[in-house]
Amino acid sequence: MIIQEPFYQPVANEVGVFMAAWSRRLPVMLKGPTGCGKTRFLEHMAWRLKRPLITVACHEDLTSSDLVGRFLIEGDATVWQDGPLTKAVREGAICYLDEIVEARTDTTVVIHPLTDHRRHLPIEKLGTEINAHPDFMLVISYNPGYQTVLKDLKPSTKQRFVGMNFTYPPAEVETRIVMKEAGLDESRSKALVAAADKARNLKDQGLQEVTSTRALIYAGALMVAGLESLEACTMAIINPQTDDPELSEALLEIFRTFFPER
Amino acid sequence: MIIQEPFYQPVANEVGVFMAAWSRRLPVMLKGPTGCGKTRFLEHMAWRLKRPLITVACHEDLTSSDLVGRFLIEGDATVWQDGPLTKAVREGAICYLDEIVEARTDTTVVIHPLTDHRRHLPIEKLGTEINAHPDFMLVISYNPGYQTVLKDLKPSTKQRFVGMNFTYPPAEVETRIVMKEAGLDESRSKALVAAADKARNLKDQGLQEVTSTRALIYAGALMVAGLESLEACTMAIINPQTDDPELSEALLEIFRTFFPER
Amino acid sequence: MIIQEPFYQPVANEVGVFMAAWSRRLPVMLKGPTGCGKTRFLEHMAWRLKRPLITVACHEDLTSSDLVGRFLIEGDATVWQDGPLTKAVREGAICYLDEIVEARTDTTVVIHPLTDHRRHLPIEKLGTEINAHPDFMLVISYNPGYQTVLKDLKPSTKQRFVGMNFTYPPAEVETRIVMKEAGLDESRSKALVAAADKARNLKDQGLQEVTSTRALIYAGALMVAGLESLEACTMAIINPQTDDPELSEALLEIFRTFFPER
Amino acid sequence: MIIQEPFYQPVANEVGVFMAAWSRRLPVMLKGPTGCGKTRFLEHMAWRLKRPLITVACHEDLTSSDLVGRFLIEGDATVWQDGPLTKAVREGAICYLDEIVEARTDTTVVIHPLTDHRRHLPIEKLGTEINAHPDFMLVISYNPGYQTVLKDLKPSTKQRFVGMNFTYPPAEVETRIVMKEAGLDESRSKALVAAADKARNLKDQGLQEVTSTRALIYAGALMVAGLESLEACTMAIINPQTDDPELSEALLEIFRTFFPER
Amino acid sequence: MIIQEPFYQPVANEVGVFMAAWSRRLPVMLKGPTGCGKTRFLEHMAWRLKRPLITVACHEDLTSSDLVGRFLIEGDATVWQDGPLTKAVREGAICYLDEIVEARTDTTVVIHPLTDHRRHLPIEKLGTEINAHPDFMLVISYNPGYQTVLKDLKPSTKQRFVGMNFTYPPAEVETRIVMKEAGLDESRSKALVAAADKARNLKDQGLQEVTSTRALIYAGALMVAGLESLEACTMAIINPQTDDPELSEALLEIFRTFFPER
Amino acid sequence: MIIQEPFYQPVANEVGVFMAAWSRRLPVMLKGPTGCGKTRFLEHMAWRLKRPLITVACHEDLTSSDLVGRFLIEGDATVWQDGPLTKAVREGAICYLDEIVEARTDTTVVIHPLTDHRRHLPIEKLGTEINAHPDFMLVISYNPGYQTVLKDLKPSTKQRFVGMNFTYPPAEVETRIVMKEAGLDESRSKALVAAADKARNLKDQGLQEVTSTRALIYAGALMVAGLESLEACTMAIINPQTDDPELSEALLEIFRTFFPER
Repeated sequence: MIIQEPFYQPVANEVGVFMAAWSRRLPVMLKGPTGCGKTRFLEHMAWRLKRPLITVACHEDLTSSDLVGRFLIEGDATVWQDGPLTKAVREGAICYLDEIVEARTDTTVVIHPLTDHRRHLPIEKLGTEINAHPDFMLVISYNPGYQTVLKDLKPSTKQRFVGMNFTYPPAEVETRIVMKEAGLDESRSKALVAAADKARNLKDQGLQEVTSTRALIYAGALMVAGLESLEACTMAIINPQTDDPELSEALLEIFRTFFPER
Repeated sequence: MIIQEPFYQPVANEVGVFMAAWSRRLPVMLKGPTGCGKTRFLEHMAWRLKRPLITVACHEDLTSSDLVGRFLIEGDATVWQDGPLTKAVREGAICYLDEIVEARTDTTVVIHPLTDHRRHLPIEKLGTEINAHPDFMLVISYNPGYQTVLKDLKPSTKQRFVGMNFTYPPAEVETRIVMKEAGLDESRSKALVAAADKARNLKDQGLQEVTSTRALIYAGALMVAGLESLEACTMAIINPQTDDPELSEALLEIFRTFFPER
Repeated sequence: MIIQEPFYQPVANEVGVFMAAWSRRLPVMLKGPTGCGKTRFLEHMAWRLKRPLITVACHEDLTSSDLVGRFLIEGDATVWQDGPLTKAVREGAICYLDEIVEARTDTTVVIHPLTDHRRHLPIEKLGTEINAHPDFMLVISYNPGYQTVLKDLKPSTKQRFVGMNFTYPPAEVETRIVMKEAGLDESRSKALVAAADKARNLKDQGLQEVTSTRALIYAGALMVAGLESLEACTMAIINPQTDDPELSEALLEIFRTFFPER
Repeated sequence: MIIQEPFYQPVANEVGVFMAAWSRRLPVMLKGPTGCGKTRFLEHMAWRLKRPLITVACHEDLTSSDLVGRFLIEGDATVWQDGPLTKAVREGAICYLDEIVEARTDTTVVIHPLTDHRRHLPIEKLGTEINAHPDFMLVISYNPGYQTVLKDLKPSTKQRFVGMNFTYPPAEVETRIVMKEAGLDESRSKALVAAADKARNLKDQGLQEVTSTRALIYAGALMVAGLESLEACTMAIINPQTDDPELSEALLEIFRTFFPER
Repeated sequence: MIIQEPFYQPVANEVGVFMAAWSRRLPVMLKGPTGCGKTRFLEHMAWRLKRPLITVACHEDLTSSDLVGRFLIEGDATVWQDGPLTKAVREGAICYLDEIVEARTDTTVVIHPLTDHRRHLPIEKLGTEINAHPDFMLVISYNPGYQTVLKDLKPSTKQRFVGMNFTYPPAEVETRIVMKEAGLDESRSKALVAAADKARNLKDQGLQEVTSTRALIYAGALMVAGLESLEACTMAIINPQTDDPELSEALLEIFRTFFPER
Repeated sequence: MIIQEPFYQPVANEVGVFMAAWSRRLPVMLKGPTGCGKTRFLEHMAWRLKRPLITVACHEDLTSSDLVGRFLIEGDATVWQDGPLTKAVREGAICYLDEIVEARTDTTVVIHPLTDHRRHLPIEKLGTEINAHPDFMLVISYNPGYQTVLKDLKPSTKQRFVGMNFTYPPAEVETRIVMKEAGLDESRSKALVAAADKARNLKDQGLQEVTSTRALIYAGALMVAGLESLEACTMAIINPQTDDPELSEALLEIFRTFFPER
């Protein structure tokens, strides 16, 4: 259970849409790039709804057993241990499967009966199935920029979810976020957001992903910690984003405009 | 055993065909896209025939052991645990292997002797085979849209089944389903079905799968929960279906015609 | 041991050839498409020779351990359990490895010493080898239509077997089989076989495998169960055979000629 | 220990060469196609030298542990069990690794120190190494026709062996082998060998491997068992060798010349 | 805890940048080629900050369990053992994941919640998550020259780190390092660094990686051990760097200029 | 500990170079083709330095656990068993990783901290690291002729070693080796070496690897055992080296010149 209100700055009607899906317990898919606030939004909603939030970061080796549970050997006995999904289904938590497309395909299959009228979870190893707690809700995230032919959610799986699109916040909102999270003054926060806006236009020139809000916060934090503005931007934004000298120079040029060297 | 009659709206003679296959205990293959009612139909038939229904959602890591059973270590003893298929074979249930093509190939082999005159299940690990209960019936599902060269049922396996083709229901039937399932009024339900009919024509323009009946029900549910019609359609139908801005716009255009913004 | 004579309708001298191979205990390879009666033939021969028949359906995950045996842990002891091949070698049964090419390659190696003058089975895990019972005989099946560059028996393995070619029975024989197995009247059985004969010519036009005798029996069974002839053919023959609308229509056209709608 | 002299018909100085290698305990590689008598030759030499012969048929899943040994759990104790290679090294047997190129690559590495001046076997799991018994000898077989880029012995491994080339025996020798092994009269044995000689010329026209001596023996055995000569050749030689109707016909044509139908 | 000051020769403001990141506990990524001093720098910083340093050299088989921990069976009990990452998170150490891109992808996922505002480590196998000690800091290294399409950090992962770029030190600094580490006189140390500078220009002509500072130290050490200068350079610098005779000769030519043979 | 002096015939200053590396305990990489004496050289050096030599022949399935150690279950206790590398590190032995490039990539990572100033071995499974014994030395071998794009040491790993290049010895030295090892007279030994010299020129015409010194010794041994010279060369040199009839004939031609048939 999240006790303190997590800071979240709404951009549009995302709270209303989530509440509508919640009222019918429809499963929700959060679509959008990393570092744009999907996790924050969900923490905020869990706090609002006063439901526990169980997050599972999915990866290539995550199997349905990791989600549902497994037998453990304890001395002479074999005891069953619920996985995070089973726990959420039993206790009525919100279960958040982050980047589920990264997990092994058996995980997709295991959530299917939880996403339609059945709302139950078959536990094949126990030979039973359990009905979801009335407050159980399933949320997944999905980053459209990363999907490939080899790794994508099946269209039929996607259609089992209500899809909410996320993107980076508008300049004014993003400035307020940088100020609050990094503890930076307004003028430099504004400059950071304005420079990021320009830098994001370089995407078509070879950057794999645009500057995230999180990177702006890191740059701000380094400034507050005493680094020169341009050095802070280089360390927190440019170096992590590209290994290419020309792209680095192009990005540096942009940030230099907003943070002229003394 | 399914106690309450599951809602199912027949479209053609599917009940008669299934009853004929059942009378001879011929194995049945349900062919058709996801979300068109195959699972519902089978729940309905199990209820009619008063037979238990055992469903196994197949996936890439599902092996024949998951279906047939395995040895578990309990203290000092090794005990055998029947898998869902063995359980169905023993008790005379209907065993439904959903999307069996996703499972590992050894599963296909294990069901072969259950699909011809032998009607027995060899359990290699026990060194025995069990004859199927007279009421045992095997049903598999198969989505023709997903099959690839790498992943397809062998023609010789398909020929072991009676094949029933499913598709989305006609407009009138689908409207009644949306009304009942989402609790939506008739006029908006009709509009949803009419818009979906148009949207389904976009398949050739890049949509991997057409709008499912389930997505229409979700959209209706969001409207009942208070969302504006177009927002509900965007969240439940358009966002889950495509990441492409142009396709999104094209779909939105269609739904806008049927749900003009106020 | 098979007690009741299994129905088998000989086509040529297949019984004589098998008896000659048996008299010298030469290993036999049954070549031919699925559903043409290979399994039935072998059940019939085992019944004639009054030898037990041990069948192993091979698949991609079947290893030599599955055939030969393995150690099981029982309490504090590790006990050896014979696999089906070892059991057959010890007891003098006919061992039938169905579609052995599907199994892992170590299985092929394990049968080699059983197919030449040595006639013994090395059990590496026990560090011993056992000489085959004088009545032991090895039979494998092989479907030439399925072999690919990646998956084929090595020529040197094939040459260790006497090869018997099977195909679908001639019309008269097949009609009698359909009548007996489906319980269908002669006229509709004849029509089914005649239609299948025409349909089998479509192979070059995209059908992966031709109509099997088994599918004809299923169609007949559905007719006996009360379905209209054309519906029965659609469900039992056409739907399982193709997902392509044009091929379906072409097949339907053929069957319509033999079963004109009332 | 092989007690009865195994029948072997020498072709050239192979016995002398093997004796020379044995006198220096040099490792030997038998090169040649399957079914040409490599195994028989080695059984014969083991009998002559009065050494036990331990044969391991290699396959894709054979690891160095299968050769060297492994720990087994017995009750509370973990006991070591020698593999066949270790047994041969300890007891001074001839160890024959049949088609070693099929095994996993770690097997090649494990035999290296046994093939040079060191003549010891490191057993990494025991943390020791054992010196080979003075009478230990290592023999491997190798079929040049099967090697591919992906699967071949490294040149540096091959150079650790004395290489003896084998091929099918000359007509006179082969006739005597067929007579003895199949129990067939001289005239039909001669005809079989003469026909095989012609058939072997078809190799360049698509046959993957030429007719083996073993297949001739099988054909002879079927004739002795009462089958007509041409039927016997079809079953034992032609059917196992090709699935191609034209090649079958070409082969049949050859055998028909030598066994004109009555 | 590192007790003795590790020798580190700063090149630019790298100490200041690291201190700024440390003051906000921002995760840091050290970018640069091998052998240029990244490990040394971090040992130096850990000594300065008086924090323990836990290093994990990542490789292809390293899984998240290796980092986080696993259950071990001890007698009748199953006991949990913390992995190095968990230990660092609990005790407030600096955890250095060297070449994390080499590890399996689940490791990347496991560090995500440690790199944003959450600063906690979910331990799925225990069903808990632990909050990082206030002094915990995460550092990874990354060699831009090695990344391929198949093996690269996801851009969204990189953006979670402050990125510090490293390269080989300027001549004067490198000379001092060689003198101190190899114990070599100044004149030969200078010659080594000057030659290396020239040799590094050969990169575009086929050398996969330029001469590292470490190789210069090794060459110096061999000189101190009594080898002739040119032989020392050949053994420590040229032989390890290329198998190509022409490139070897080109490199030798360069070193001969600086160490003319007596 | 090697008690008897192993025969080794130095070619250049290899002993001096190795002693220099040893005096600084720098890790050494022996580069060169198989069968040219690398192993012998190292046995000789270990004998000279009076250090134990621990050799590990690397292969595709060798993991870091095989080198470092693993937990074994003994009754109720789990006991740790040092691997060969750990043993060498503890006891101050010379550890020789033969063809390390064949091993799995985690092995390379595990040796890194042993090859720089740290000289320690992290044992992740024990959660500790051990400092190397002052006399510990690491030696690896590397065959440049075998490396491929898929399988090669990373340049950054190679640069951690002093690299000593080996090749086949000059004629006079090789003759003496053949005489001593095979026990052959000088004249035939000279002829063998002279023929090998010519044969090695065929490399560019399709031979994968040139004739090794070891093969010459084998040929000599077969001559001493009584085989005719040309037969001995065929068995020990030509047959193991090629399956190609034309290359065989070309090689035979060369040897016939030096060993004209009587």
